[in-house]
Amino acid sequence: MKRYLSVISLEEALDLIERSFSFVPGTETVPIDAAAGRITASPIIGRFSVPEIHLSAMDGIAVRSADTVGASEQRPVRITDAVRVNTGNVIPPGYDAVVMIEDVWEEEGGYTIRRSVSPWQHVRPVGEDIGESEMVVPSLHRIRPPDIGALAAYGIAEVEVLSVRVGLIPTGSELVPVGTRPPPGKVVESNTLAAAAWLGQLGARCRRYGIVPDEYDRIREAVLQGAAENDLLLVSAGSSAGTRDYTADVIRELGEVLAHGVGIRPGKPVIIGRIDGKPVIGLPGYPLAALTILREIVVPLLGRFGLPQPPKERVSARLTTSLYSDIGTDEFVLLSVGRIGGRWVAVPQSRGAGVQMSAVRSNAYMRIGADSEGTAAGEEISAVLGVPLSAAEEALLITGSHDPALDYLADLARKTGIDLHSTHVGSMGGLLALKKRECHAAPMHLLAPDGSYNTHYLRRYLPDADLVLLCIADRQQGVVSRDGITFREIPDHRFVNRQKGSGTRMLLDHLLQREGISPSSIPGYEREMTTHLAVALAVKTGEADAGLCVYSAAHALGLAFVPVGTERYELAMHRESLDDPRIASLVETVASDAFRQALLDLGGYEVAETGVLRGLQE
Amino acid sequence: MKRYLSVISLEEALDLIERSFSFVPGTETVPIDAAAGRITASPIIGRFSVPEIHLSAMDGIAVRSADTVGASEQRPVRITDAVRVNTGNVIPPGYDAVVMIEDVWEEEGGYTIRRSVSPWQHVRPVGEDIGESEMVVPSLHRIRPPDIGALAAYGIAEVEVLSVRVGLIPTGSELVPVGTRPPPGKVVESNTLAAAAWLGQLGARCRRYGIVPDEYDRIREAVLQGAAENDLLLVSAGSSAGTRDYTADVIRELGEVLAHGVGIRPGKPVIIGRIDGKPVIGLPGYPLAALTILREIVVPLLGRFGLPQPPKERVSARLTTSLYSDIGTDEFVLLSVGRIGGRWVAVPQSRGAGVQMSAVRSNAYMRIGADSEGTAAGEEISAVLGVPLSAAEEALLITGSHDPALDYLADLARKTGIDLHSTHVGSMGGLLALKKRECHAAPMHLLAPDGSYNTHYLRRYLPDADLVLLCIADRQQGVVSRDGITFREIPDHRFVNRQKGSGTRMLLDHLLQREGISPSSIPGYEREMTTHLAVALAVKTGEADAGLCVYSAAHALGLAFVPVGTERYELAMHRESLDDPRIASLVETVASDAFRQALLDLGGYEVAETGVLRGLQE
Repeated sequence: MKRYLSVISLEEALDLIERSFSFVPGTETVPIDAAAGRITASPIIGRFSVPEIHLSAMDGIAVRSADTVGASEQRPVRITDAVRVNTGNVIPPGYDAVVMIEDVWEEEGGYTIRRSVSPWQHVRPVGEDIGESEMVVPSLHRIRPPDIGALAAYGIAEVEVLSVRVGLIPTGSELVPVGTRPPPGKVVESNTLAAAAWLGQLGARCRRYGIVPDEYDRIREAVLQGAAENDLLLVSAGSSAGTRDYTADVIRELGEVLAHGVGIRPGKPVIIGRIDGKPVIGLPGYPLAALTILREIVVPLLGRFGLPQPPKERVSARLTTSLYSDIGTDEFVLLSVGRIGGRWVAVPQSRGAGVQMSAVRSNAYMRIGADSEGTAAGEEISAVLGVPLSAAEEALLITGSHDPALDYLADLARKTGIDLHSTHVGSMGGLLALKKRECHAAPMHLLAPDGSYNTHYLRRYLPDADLVLLCIADRQQGVVSRDGITFREIPDHRFVNRQKGSGTRMLLDHLLQREGISPSSIPGYEREMTTHLAVALAVKTGEADAGLCVYSAAHALGLAFVPVGTERYELAMHRESLDDPRIASLVETVASDAFRQALLDLGGYEVAETGVLRGLQE
Repeated sequence: MKRYLSVISLEEALDLIERSFSFVPGTETVPIDAAAGRITASPIIGRFSVPEIHLSAMDGIAVRSADTVGASEQRPVRITDAVRVNTGNVIPPGYDAVVMIEDVWEEEGGYTIRRSVSPWQHVRPVGEDIGESEMVVPSLHRIRPPDIGALAAYGIAEVEVLSVRVGLIPTGSELVPVGTRPPPGKVVESNTLAAAAWLGQLGARCRRYGIVPDEYDRIREAVLQGAAENDLLLVSAGSSAGTRDYTADVIRELGEVLAHGVGIRPGKPVIIGRIDGKPVIGLPGYPLAALTILREIVVPLLGRFGLPQPPKERVSARLTTSLYSDIGTDEFVLLSVGRIGGRWVAVPQSRGAGVQMSAVRSNAYMRIGADSEGTAAGEEISAVLGVPLSAAEEALLITGSHDPALDYLADLARKTGIDLHSTHVGSMGGLLALKKRECHAAPMHLLAPDGSYNTHYLRRYLPDADLVLLCIADRQQGVVSRDGITFREIPDHRFVNRQKGSGTRMLLDHLLQREGISPSSIPGYEREMTTHLAVALAVKTGEADAGLCVYSAAHALGLAFVPVGTERYELAMHRESLDDPRIASLVETVASDAFRQALLDLGGYEVAETGVLRGLQE
């Protein structure tokens, strides 16, 4: 089996890149109206003065200032030699000032003015804005919209800008192009799409080549072409040590492999190569590994070509979950950060490199340095924002039990400018997050022995907290199956369970006890899923025959559903958080007709109590 | 004369806008690879689960986990029923785990493994990333590049996004299109170019119409079409009270004028109108007035349509110059901000609404509220950054005497990642800014009675400071004219002078005294310009016959130049600032061959001393 011969550190990789290439960007000429965000390749010099001739700065009359001496409200002065001018009109030769129209009475054969003017008053002199031959902007200036207006005004119709040509070659026999439904075991080629969108935003000129199957000669041909036609070539995947990973061998044949394997996670299998003096990067195939390599290696590489680096805005945040990491590896973890009270809190996303939803859901990331074994829950970490700070301020962290209704709540909440970040850790997990004040609200459905919901456990675990509960809905739970299995029939079928601490698991155990069914009699009782939809999916794919979930999950996948009862699904919050305008807005959204309608459309929810807010002591 | 009937406050204007329109954005469908930065118009639902079938998460062999029980380094286990899989391959039915290839020896007829695996270990289960029917992103989500990868992977080939159609009609008989050399009194139409670039970046779909001359019927026709074809119409200029300002009348005929005149500066003549229920904004004609109205009124208006507002990053900065403002007017002032030591300093740019270079040179702006008469020098103000914070950190404030060489220094400095912001206040102005630590470096050429340069005045005005002087060059000053006037001939010609406190003015007065020429004998001695180029321009246009300036300014405009001598043009700095890596980099750039060559190319500089750093006591 092939192995990585040597793994270098991220820092060494960046040093290696800096040493190994000359980074001479190309340039291209673009029309001025397409230049926003581009980087000037050379200084831009004004073609003519603006204004080129003295202009009136006001509506009024052009005069000789000497003629106006002494004019005032009390002693108006009559002027016979003057010319009516509007703002922007040329001052005719011989005149050296303008009296504003407000201070002028027009009369037969002349004007009377009630204010004197000094020489050149209300005149825009030649070159006031810019003089002929003056430099408007230097090289390596990022062109902003106001620059475009100025440059156009100074006679610049097109500008020479940096142009880094980036080629992207997707390789892999498992890939189908976007817009094609992938058959089982195939996937949509999406990594070069995301990369092109990203690098394009930074000013690179990206070209995506067609998908190349895992055949050495075809990859070789594509890389040869891509290296010839671009300043930087990215080869997507084929960089691991699998039996059909040819990228490194191809780069070695056409040039040289400078490094294969970097101590970075996700993204370790990255290749840094050189063909004809140009950088060729082999990206790992897992989407989040590819994104990490883009951000940590490719974007800085483009910076060496002169493209500006995106700003890294940071907040100091308290980490909610311990993260372990290997010494010698720089690890990057996606986060959902939100401000709770005066403090930022960071919830790590799934670290699976194939889970693209982690990137969609996250609004920040953190780095665990190569010299660290990890970061403990409760420590302050430095989170780099992936959105503007103002957008991060809109984030509400919703941690607890999962329900599809939360996504529809998030959709409606966006319209009020807030951004729900849901983390699915089960009802008990939410309760503990609320106790540690690591979430804004905890969705839960915890059945107590007395048949009540939520209040029992909250009183027990947060005895001193002043809490409120906001009802999302009374929702149906039931047995999901392909063919209508009832609760009592569960022991005869392959089951798929929910994780310990989830309300659904607690409901199951409660029902099993009531019905006198032993967990050990249920095949699959130990197979745990973390969401309703995962349970329904396991049933749909035939991996299991039955599970317990909400109606909407069963309905979405077209499966049979036999109700076992309704339960009160509520958002628990600290009462003081109702003072937070974002929470107040969320409460309003839950109580809205639009949300009630969304629940009815999903199905399986009773909405009579939706939006009801109760205190814990009531 | 027409007047504004009533001026409302900026706050009232924003309220009026909020009340007067329904803000229903259009939508359009764009391919996923063109969706970066766009705003989703509806929630996006995954088309299928990812993965849709259990996949191997590793290179290895797919096994029944039960077969591996007890396997270890010491006790390898032989497996006969297994299938070789690479990362991403489908796990064949019947298998429930993967043993990593590192723990496998392939043998005739089977494998030996040295590690056991638990059920579903190293397997990416169905729906691990996303389940069929799950919401990927809600409405009103700004699509980021990683979202594009995820959406493509989940089967989304195109997305419905908000589309606010913005029409831009430039009006004015003085306008010529970009790319045309304007004859005297005409100007390039640049306001709608800058507006389209700006609003386009925020996600609006902008359409620029052709230039319409100042004719009522033609403006009427264009506005009618523009209002019909767009969600928002911007009519550029014709909004003042001049004799040919028809915009308000046209809007009144076709709909209604809700407000004409807002207490904002620059930008007071703005019109807020409504035609067929749609907002029609009459932009003022001065470029900086138009930009201010775009930023303070039009961008928030687009926000009401659902387009995200650009983040407003702020720093608290010390204002270097007192700014007076009218009560009742919200005034916006462009700034150059830079960090000096640990503190931000804000230098106001020219407030002339026609000076587009103020926008080009500025990296921030401030607001003086309607309830304030202004802000005094030395006060802390809140500066809103127009560039990322990291870019603002690169700014070096260079305040003092003007020389074209500074622009070429700025151009070279960009390559080392620093951003020179020059403010031209003359040598004495720079000296005072240095004393107050309101600039990083002060360029100066102050001739002392003993014939020495700069040290005399620095010792006198900053007796306790530990200063250093970095030589830019020994540069020629001389008499600029169209036909070779000498210094002694000045009294016979119309002269144009420099402002008091400038080194050139001090040089002139020194030379006049030496030659026994009385200032009162010089016609035009009282006409003051603030830059070398302005002096040369006045000579070129025939407004004056002679002036004193540097060679490069005369040369750039093709004028005659009779040298009167060289002077030492230096950058004065506090010695401690040499520890600032940005200053260290600037010192290196001044000493570079490239800068010396730039000076020689400009002409009129002796470069033997260029880059020499001297202490004040030496």
